[in-house]
Amino acid sequence: MARALDEAEAAARRGEVPIGAVLVRDGEIVAADGNRPRELNDPTAHAEMLVIRAGAAKLGSERLIGCDLWVTLEPCPMCAAAISFARIRRLYYGADDPKGGAVVSGGRLYSLPTCHHAPEVYGGFGETASAELLREFFRERR
Amino acid sequence: MARALDEAEAAARRGEVPIGAVLVRDGEIVAADGNRPRELNDPTAHAEMLVIRAGAAKLGSERLIGCDLWVTLEPCPMCAAAISFARIRRLYYGADDPKGGAVVSGGRLYSLPTCHHAPEVYGGFGETASAELLREFFRERR
Repeated sequence: MARALDEAEAAARRGEVPIGAVLVRDGEIVAADGNRPRELNDPTAHAEMLVIRAGAAKLGSERLIGCDLWVTLEPCPMCAAAISFARIRRLYYGADDPKGGAVVSGGRLYSLPTCHHAPEVYGGFGETASAELLREFFRERR
Repeated sequence: MARALDEAEAAARRGEVPIGAVLVRDGEIVAADGNRPRELNDPTAHAEMLVIRAGAAKLGSERLIGCDLWVTLEPCPMCAAAISFARIRRLYYGADDPKGGAVVSGGRLYSLPTCHHAPEVYGGFGETASAELLREFFRERR
């Protein structure tokens, strides 16, 4: 999660909402990145999407079997669904996101009977630091 | 929708689940594509995601203001959320997808109080042809 927080801080320095993600397999980092929708002019360029896409390209498979994802904020519906499609094994996240999350908040995607694959979910890792980065970012913007 | 169905048929010929999407602005096609997760080793490469990303890159903005999306099947949660983030104006889709959809099925994302932007939604365009393409594809695979 320390590396995911570093990616979130780097995102803030680029003027992006500070969220970072790291994809891990067998104790090795497969991909790490932060939010880049503004830089890339790509509304889908959330940190989770970028590491899933990079990881799948690197491993040569659309399924990231045995991979775990660390992300500083509870994933939104787009990312939560992509995590399911990619067959991510475990999801570790920082702060809950009552407004935009879709894991323990909002639509709670993994609880739907139609969800084919749900990762094991562990929240609250680096929660304070994750939330503080976001608060600081939005405070400066106001 | 005819063009979206062409893209779905092309996807089937590539061995992909036959779903196609077209992004339109001011009566002009901005981007058109079909599913490519297998070809690209990218679990996020649904037709809708590809045209949203291509459209945003082409228009130089992460928000596709005034753009409408045509897609042969009701979008999944990943694509439905991306459509919201991209600020798509109108969503026209073919067949409902009770198992995987997130617009009128499943989590019904646009009905959540936390959804910042919901497109106008119109279903049932080319529904029979869309559904038949999918049925045929899965029948041949069995």
